[in-house]
Amino acid sequence: MKPDSKADKGSISDQIVQFVCEFEGTAIPDDARHVMRLSLVDWVAVSVAGRNEPVARILQKIGEDEGGTPEAFVVGCSHRLPARMAAKINGTLSHALDYDDTHFDSMGHTSVAVIPAALSLADKMSTQPKAFLEAVLIGVELAVRIGAWLGRSHYHAGFHMTATAGTFGAAMASARILGLSSERTRHALGIAASMASGIKTQFGTMGKPLHAGLAAHAGVDAALLARDGFVSTHDGLEGEQGFSPTHHGAGDTGAFDGLGDDFVFERVSHKFHACCHGIHATLEALAILRERYSVQPEEIAELVITVNPQYLNVCNIASPVTGLEAKFSYRLVAAMFMHGHDTARIETYNDMICQDKDVLRLREKVIVATDAGISDSAATVDLKLANGDQHSQSFNLTDPMSLPAREARVRAKAASLIGAGEADSLWQKVGLGEQLPSFWIADQALT
Amino acid sequence: MKPDSKADKGSISDQIVQFVCEFEGTAIPDDARHVMRLSLVDWVAVSVAGRNEPVARILQKIGEDEGGTPEAFVVGCSHRLPARMAAKINGTLSHALDYDDTHFDSMGHTSVAVIPAALSLADKMSTQPKAFLEAVLIGVELAVRIGAWLGRSHYHAGFHMTATAGTFGAAMASARILGLSSERTRHALGIAASMASGIKTQFGTMGKPLHAGLAAHAGVDAALLARDGFVSTHDGLEGEQGFSPTHHGAGDTGAFDGLGDDFVFERVSHKFHACCHGIHATLEALAILRERYSVQPEEIAELVITVNPQYLNVCNIASPVTGLEAKFSYRLVAAMFMHGHDTARIETYNDMICQDKDVLRLREKVIVATDAGISDSAATVDLKLANGDQHSQSFNLTDPMSLPAREARVRAKAASLIGAGEADSLWQKVGLGEQLPSFWIADQALT
Repeated sequence: MKPDSKADKGSISDQIVQFVCEFEGTAIPDDARHVMRLSLVDWVAVSVAGRNEPVARILQKIGEDEGGTPEAFVVGCSHRLPARMAAKINGTLSHALDYDDTHFDSMGHTSVAVIPAALSLADKMSTQPKAFLEAVLIGVELAVRIGAWLGRSHYHAGFHMTATAGTFGAAMASARILGLSSERTRHALGIAASMASGIKTQFGTMGKPLHAGLAAHAGVDAALLARDGFVSTHDGLEGEQGFSPTHHGAGDTGAFDGLGDDFVFERVSHKFHACCHGIHATLEALAILRERYSVQPEEIAELVITVNPQYLNVCNIASPVTGLEAKFSYRLVAAMFMHGHDTARIETYNDMICQDKDVLRLREKVIVATDAGISDSAATVDLKLANGDQHSQSFNLTDPMSLPAREARVRAKAASLIGAGEADSLWQKVGLGEQLPSFWIADQALT
Repeated sequence: MKPDSKADKGSISDQIVQFVCEFEGTAIPDDARHVMRLSLVDWVAVSVAGRNEPVARILQKIGEDEGGTPEAFVVGCSHRLPARMAAKINGTLSHALDYDDTHFDSMGHTSVAVIPAALSLADKMSTQPKAFLEAVLIGVELAVRIGAWLGRSHYHAGFHMTATAGTFGAAMASARILGLSSERTRHALGIAASMASGIKTQFGTMGKPLHAGLAAHAGVDAALLARDGFVSTHDGLEGEQGFSPTHHGAGDTGAFDGLGDDFVFERVSHKFHACCHGIHATLEALAILRERYSVQPEEIAELVITVNPQYLNVCNIASPVTGLEAKFSYRLVAAMFMHGHDTARIETYNDMICQDKDVLRLREKVIVATDAGISDSAATVDLKLANGDQHSQSFNLTDPMSLPAREARVRAKAASLIGAGEADSLWQKVGLGEQLPSFWIADQALT
């Protein structure tokens, strides 16, 4: 995997297929493996937490009505289902809360297409947890790199990277699980090019989480068709009428530099608050001040939040009255946070919190300001205390976090979502590679 | 359905939904209904003939392996399968021979996405043949008009209209079968916008027929999701990041003029020869000369075929040796035709015919010439007979054909594909609306 020059690497499809079929799991860097464990645990937590969302219920019922060979586990279903359908349902419900991991390089959600695809086939094929983790890591790495290769032009034209790049990642993870030959993997890649779809006009509807399910389904379908002898185009990604040229792809081949040596996936972001992503940097800055100065909510005289102006019409509802509106309110969420409410929990955002007297008193002291010079991943908070002290703190979500800190945060998030004991068990069993996520979830007494 | 002005019609999505939900079957013009009968019969004939193609076998096996609730008939399978899977398999196998109908307005195959989608749901819902035909007609009409609206720019960018426009047509036929409300139909249209995909880089592979199956599957899936309460984007077709703007759509709103009054579907083309489409105009011109002058093959001294030069590297194999190559040889197919071989039959194109002494003798007298001024849907043949007589005939596939002539040709093609008695029964039972295609096929003793 360390060729002398770029010319040796072959086409992008060549590089991808070689990575899927020849990369040795033993060559995975420890950090990449560790981050993959975090994403597996995070995926299980958001899937379990999202299993009763309306869109999850619709898909689960469809699966139960259709039935079929019991190949793969489905979160929230009592019976196993065919792998394709399991991937579709699990993919959709794991993105239902929009609380799963994301990657800046590909402007998309990373795990929600790849993990459900690989998991459904791992169930079907009785794959061991170690090989499963390797397949998923290969899939997410490729989803991020293919997304970066398609580039901003693809995203800004209107395509939902989670769905499009996700389909290719899901197909390649699936090919790895099935142990396809290079030739068959190439066909799977070609088939995926005919299936990858999903446009951003769905944002704000059930269509967005469905995209993750469709991508997972397509990945499984492409790999199984290829296994069964299906003959597809040889250059579905980069050919003259391949996916990238037809879908406004930038075609930045630099996106594949170092494939197999470096895992760009390591820079994946986990969401640590169950509110709009635009509020997260603010909460991280507040967390630093709260801890450093032991700030009590009653001491606060004024709290100024400064963010990029693009967020004013996204998450700046001044006086929210419903739990959903609460998720899009800088003022309320900041006040909730300083009062010690767990912003990682879904249930924290409810109608009652919008009327909580203590929270409302502090909310009235919060001012939202804008600065076009601030990155859209950053925020600055300025705190004035009743005793006259002033503190200021900035935070950028792209700032690197140490691996132990990330692990602690992901495990704390899981505890907020599914309970402390369950989160601990999840880390021990799934995180450390003893069980597939499906087996662990099946062992829980979920309602 | 006859508003006073364009302004009254609402958006394109409004017009589509209104057509699906409010158009009365009694308002269907006789000619449109008649052409729809022809396409139903044609679809059954090519599906039965294509049921053992390799790509059909791959899909059928997948369906049988997955199993599930026995909702819908699948050509070539012993058991019914869930509607989604049935649509996928039937869609794929009906396009396996590339012998199904096409429409110039949308540059795509018309029936292979819509009929399988509607049929699988008609099976599931026990829909009557009359309502089934109406739903299919609404679906193909919309597939053609949406394809024309997406336009040449969409096709030339690399999208396979059969797959993309076909998905929308399939979804709308499915919504009609399910009797969805306007609101639910609108959601189905939105969901379809996230599923429509398929690029022309698959041409020449199994990916091309699969596109028809994917479109049929997506149409059924979108309609069933909408029925089950799924909430989708409101403007998936024409919105700012809707399907057309993101997929190089021309957005020619004139494509919807007269929707509900005129059926542009009536101009659908049926293929009457099982060889490359580029040879069809030549064969039609030869048929005219053969009949008019009772030409015997032994009398021919020279036969000059003049076509658009674009076909020289498409279907001008001078001395084919395999059945597949035969389909792409002007010289051989013309000689076969004048010798009375049935060019509508699949089996006519075999390795032996390439060595047939009589055919080869005539093949050597055929000359292929080009003229850039000739339309790509036309050909001219110039015949010199041994007695010195000379005859010339041109033919353009876009020339209108009378409805009785079309019926005779479609029924003759069906007879060539599935047998004379079967074709007669097919016309009586399916063509005249007594049975769903699924029930008729199930009654045949297919191997």
